[in-house]
Amino acid sequence: MGRLRDENSIIHKIEKAFPARGRGNLRLGLGDDAALWKPRRGCETILTCDWFLEGTHFLRNVHPAKSVGWKCLARAVSDIAAMGGEPRCFLVSLALPGGETGRWLDGFLRGLRRASRALDCELTGGDTTQSRHILINVTVVGEIAARGAILRAGARRGDFIYVSGRLGEAELGRRELIVRRGGARSKSVGVKKHLYPEPRLALGRWLAETGMASAMMDLSDGLSTDLPRLCVASGVGAVIEEAALPCVTTRNRAAALAMALHGGDDYELLFCVSEKKAQGLPKSYRGLRLTRIGKIVAERKIKLAKENGKEQALAAGGWDSFRE
Amino acid sequence: MGRLRDENSIIHKIEKAFPARGRGNLRLGLGDDAALWKPRRGCETILTCDWFLEGTHFLRNVHPAKSVGWKCLARAVSDIAAMGGEPRCFLVSLALPGGETGRWLDGFLRGLRRASRALDCELTGGDTTQSRHILINVTVVGEIAARGAILRAGARRGDFIYVSGRLGEAELGRRELIVRRGGARSKSVGVKKHLYPEPRLALGRWLAETGMASAMMDLSDGLSTDLPRLCVASGVGAVIEEAALPCVTTRNRAAALAMALHGGDDYELLFCVSEKKAQGLPKSYRGLRLTRIGKIVAERKIKLAKENGKEQALAAGGWDSFRE
Repeated sequence: MGRLRDENSIIHKIEKAFPARGRGNLRLGLGDDAALWKPRRGCETILTCDWFLEGTHFLRNVHPAKSVGWKCLARAVSDIAAMGGEPRCFLVSLALPGGETGRWLDGFLRGLRRASRALDCELTGGDTTQSRHILINVTVVGEIAARGAILRAGARRGDFIYVSGRLGEAELGRRELIVRRGGARSKSVGVKKHLYPEPRLALGRWLAETGMASAMMDLSDGLSTDLPRLCVASGVGAVIEEAALPCVTTRNRAAALAMALHGGDDYELLFCVSEKKAQGLPKSYRGLRLTRIGKIVAERKIKLAKENGKEQALAAGGWDSFRE
Repeated sequence: MGRLRDENSIIHKIEKAFPARGRGNLRLGLGDDAALWKPRRGCETILTCDWFLEGTHFLRNVHPAKSVGWKCLARAVSDIAAMGGEPRCFLVSLALPGGETGRWLDGFLRGLRRASRALDCELTGGDTTQSRHILINVTVVGEIAARGAILRAGARRGDFIYVSGRLGEAELGRRELIVRRGGARSKSVGVKKHLYPEPRLALGRWLAETGMASAMMDLSDGLSTDLPRLCVASGVGAVIEEAALPCVTTRNRAAALAMALHGGDDYELLFCVSEKKAQGLPKSYRGLRLTRIGKIVAERKIKLAKENGKEQALAAGGWDSFRE
């Protein structure tokens, strides 16, 4: 549990926490210059990487080390879910203060290992160094049948727009946690979703395998920030029905709507389905609600049809670290 | 050249600097949740990632932005060279202060693009966010014939130990640069090697294809820190001949030897060759000197045979960010 004083000891601790499971197509894991990987025949490799930085994405005195370990992998894996693929292995780059190489690192590795097992995604490499703040970068390697990935660019005029789960839940949890300064004993649904998000892998795979979705992405920065990205990629616009948004239940309806539109970190899936195929889409998939929230239109604007009957432009109000 | 005020503008600037070249096996590059990649038939994928952090690995007021762009990719590609492979594509995660999204980012992207072209390694994805310091993480994807990679674990008793190029050159350059506070007009060989290192891709590939090397790694943290890693992986020890080390030429022989043993950032290749195969090893490869510096032994210790005839343990004195 003590503080470690050289890089080799830290690498050794990580290797001990992740004994090689020796899967078929992952030939060389930790301990060499690089990892070796071979996708199964007929499959493509999916590659994605994600920052998870102290101060920007989490706070050391609010977020438990275990949650940091879980979430840094889960949010990167969410990008694999958003393509309809399956995660296979990951690399973790970890920079941390010397004083956090004991108990904090142990907690972090516990959370990371739990996510690694739950998401069936094996640690295969990384890099460690010292820094003043805790810095994490995760690269996830996934697999999907060749030409089977659902891209952002496939949305067409007339497609219905869907989301999984409830929007704004993680944002509500984040607020609860900040107010309690991390000391939340009874974990509400929101706090749990904020600390331990679950990428929608099964749904993403099902949507890809059935050819149901024309376009897909995950909601990491909030609907009002992410939906325009999908629309730009597809060269279309969208109208969102405020009344249809699957919100959190609070007394303050306006706050719930704002969290659904702009709250980040939900890691739900946003996807489009043609009018014809939509008839075959169930109301939920494996207990996860699927809600139609709007429609793709030709005009390249994002509009919100308000509950009061008026229509207005939907401005991006989600998470953007560069916005002032 | 102005400061950018949202993440989409930064992504757009990066995409403009790296227009898609549309190579055969890289199907989807920037602009979606993740990238899609397929190695050629009969090949394995090599995966490696590397930190490059302000304060730890470079200084904003000493190292030109162009050098930061070049070096963050070149040093990660060096791990591909160390396996005998070829780089194919990379992901770059970039966190930077809002004030550096103008001129600094332009210079960085120029250096990164130059390295990308020189090393034939295409940008295919990444992540951007804001932070107080400049933080970079690069993941490189390479390719090698299945089962053709040279690992660290293959060294056997009696193998000769070789290095490419001259050791300590980059460390000498780093010292020159610090003394001049970055304002080095005439770029010495050392300063050039420190700012714009060249991964030894051609040599690595040749050593892998000919089956000449039994074990290999790149020298990033200095010989005295890296050699033990190769020896531990192989379950062997080594004796290094001080007199044989290819050092920089300075009046101070002791300083030159120390830089050769402990200086980091050279990105030369360290490799082992059996006594029998060593007869066929040329003195240089494509103008790059290959020097025999010692021998692998059974006893798991790293020893230095000094110029004065004495033998002593070689303590790791290279780069380790956690050492105090």
